[in-house]
Amino acid sequence: MNNLLIAQSGGPSVAINATVGGAVEYGLISGKIDRIFGAVHGIKGVLEDHLIPLHSVLSSPEKMTLLCHTPAAALGSCRYKLNDYRQDETDYETIIQVFRRHNIRYFIYIGGNDSMDTVLKLSDYCREKGINDIFVMGAPKTIDNDLAQTDHCPGFGSAAKYIATTFSELERDRAVYDDKNVTIVEVMGRDAGWLTAAAALSRGNGSHGPDLLYLCEQPLEPSDFVKQVKQKLSETTSVMVAVSEGIKNSAGHYLSEECQSGAADNFGHQYIAGAGRVLEGLVRDEIGCKVRAIELNLMQRCSSRIASATDLYESRMLGMKALSRALEGGSGEMACIRRIVNLPYEVSYDTADIRDIANHVKNVPASWILPDGKGVTREMIDYLYPLIQGEVPLSFEHGIPAHLKLF
Amino acid sequence: MNNLLIAQSGGPSVAINATVGGAVEYGLISGKIDRIFGAVHGIKGVLEDHLIPLHSVLSSPEKMTLLCHTPAAALGSCRYKLNDYRQDETDYETIIQVFRRHNIRYFIYIGGNDSMDTVLKLSDYCREKGINDIFVMGAPKTIDNDLAQTDHCPGFGSAAKYIATTFSELERDRAVYDDKNVTIVEVMGRDAGWLTAAAALSRGNGSHGPDLLYLCEQPLEPSDFVKQVKQKLSETTSVMVAVSEGIKNSAGHYLSEECQSGAADNFGHQYIAGAGRVLEGLVRDEIGCKVRAIELNLMQRCSSRIASATDLYESRMLGMKALSRALEGGSGEMACIRRIVNLPYEVSYDTADIRDIANHVKNVPASWILPDGKGVTREMIDYLYPLIQGEVPLSFEHGIPAHLKLF
Repeated sequence: MNNLLIAQSGGPSVAINATVGGAVEYGLISGKIDRIFGAVHGIKGVLEDHLIPLHSVLSSPEKMTLLCHTPAAALGSCRYKLNDYRQDETDYETIIQVFRRHNIRYFIYIGGNDSMDTVLKLSDYCREKGINDIFVMGAPKTIDNDLAQTDHCPGFGSAAKYIATTFSELERDRAVYDDKNVTIVEVMGRDAGWLTAAAALSRGNGSHGPDLLYLCEQPLEPSDFVKQVKQKLSETTSVMVAVSEGIKNSAGHYLSEECQSGAADNFGHQYIAGAGRVLEGLVRDEIGCKVRAIELNLMQRCSSRIASATDLYESRMLGMKALSRALEGGSGEMACIRRIVNLPYEVSYDTADIRDIANHVKNVPASWILPDGKGVTREMIDYLYPLIQGEVPLSFEHGIPAHLKLF
Repeated sequence: MNNLLIAQSGGPSVAINATVGGAVEYGLISGKIDRIFGAVHGIKGVLEDHLIPLHSVLSSPEKMTLLCHTPAAALGSCRYKLNDYRQDETDYETIIQVFRRHNIRYFIYIGGNDSMDTVLKLSDYCREKGINDIFVMGAPKTIDNDLAQTDHCPGFGSAAKYIATTFSELERDRAVYDDKNVTIVEVMGRDAGWLTAAAALSRGNGSHGPDLLYLCEQPLEPSDFVKQVKQKLSETTSVMVAVSEGIKNSAGHYLSEECQSGAADNFGHQYIAGAGRVLEGLVRDEIGCKVRAIELNLMQRCSSRIASATDLYESRMLGMKALSRALEGGSGEMACIRRIVNLPYEVSYDTADIRDIANHVKNVPASWILPDGKGVTREMIDYLYPLIQGEVPLSFEHGIPAHLKLF
């Protein structure tokens, strides 16, 4: 028996289930896979031998479509880091035992940086121990878009489409009054500003777009921020600001830490405010106009009703690619996307050595960011634009989108 | 010339433009209206004689459809309260002058409580002054659903659909990990808990739904909240809480005020935390598990991509009804919805005396709320359910929903 095991790890996204779908489809058609399992809660589910028979659970086209349209991670996730096997082999031995018990020869792990660390360690372990009939492949997934070697990451395009759409809708909302106001929207991204940059795509429907755009790759001094907002307020009525949650000042401290350490209320409760909330306080205190901070929060990674069709398609293709390469004997690699042309958009699917991916972070190139919150360059827009194209026709149940639950 | 003037007021919503659309359509077909104008920024736009010729701007079916699908208020809004005309007639005289200048005989004002106050005062003024050829009608709009005399309000159904959908998506997101966590979602509603109750509709697609549901109609003691969350954590892994922004303790103080007066950071900046953030602090300090507060913020009133088709249809019908009644000689009334049957859903359109609406608030009936955060009754679900049914096929432009801008 040659069986396939798939697991998901790291933060949820709208597209990660489509990658499971792609791998399952390819497995069913390849003629080389007997059974397909999913591990519940990532590598933890493997360690606990908690597997689901996907070949029978996903038996109908309806369920397969529903899986691809369901947000988050249908197999569950984890944040479990394997030890260095040179110091402790316990987990590795358990994993191989579970694999042998279920005749698993192909393992696809879908996730971000930390998940690729698992792919690296497990494939290294197999090589080192001479286990040459088990193939470990990674498939990328992170709304942060910060994985190296791939042009972009599944989940990012849908989150970018959510952000661009939401900025356009908020702009309409903010434009109804004629008194001066500032809206600060905090976007996910601790280390990379790709998602924040996507706010600029809100111009696609003729919206004005964010007036100020602060990516976490560039430091922001509170005093400069106040100056730049004042300038914009002198030019326009409603000022829209996009800011990365991970924005830092020039001393390298997160704004969200620096400005609020020790903030506690009458009852002694601590409040941990995000970057947007800190900037809101600055506008209120230093400028004094109407101001509102908005956190897009988890909605930006689970709003499947505004998923990008391009994103979901590519996510499926990457699941197929990961398995296709494993069936050829690949291990210790990650499926990735190579961009050929921006417009008309064209890509190819490839794999890359996991050593060049695990524990690396891909930032927004400095040359794509304009200074003083002025936004991003044409190159950045050309890069982002194709990733949010196309809509996904969801099915609804009693007025809300239908979801598939696997456990 | 018999001309029609339409204006919008109060907080934006996804459905308010459909009411403009309905009034314009009825005006075009009635054979009794020559020209149709829109005032920019509500009654302020009337006072400033800032009018748009809607009969020419909305000349194509495409533009009319786009108007109905555009969120916020395409004519702009205001929060302008007319003085009592017995004390100061200035504004009233200006309004009538503008009406006469443009031969406006029918005025439709779309909005919530405050806007209906304008309809009341202006229609009273006309009656008092013997101006019997100007007809002033209200059309309801508020996502808060707290207007009296109408079964429900345009904008509410779409916001409720957004909230139910978002709860279901957040539940999927929160379910991926297997460690104990609490998610507190703060929903709009200062005085009425209708929107918070809509979180219970997330069960429509088989989701578990919120574990605890706190409507602002019932007081919440922080110590009871902690006890109830602890109980839920002993039963389940991921606890979802829905809470109205206007929740108060049993002494009648907003939780968002009571718990945080004086909270300031090292720089002396004040942070104004919402109810959700305050409850998040309680969980962190008194229970100590993973906790996250989420504010649905303005997204719940401007996310047209999840608009309810029922809501948009009824909003159009109410615009038509308001004009139809004005053409019959009605003034000082508001168009409203009467529910006939819950299932199969059936309503009729009527009007009601503005005196019974302006400055009233319709709360959730106490008998529809279960105690101790346990949710809402079957009657409440039966009331809410039809309002979120049906989806709206949006058109997209460069990957994001297309919008119409009128000024």
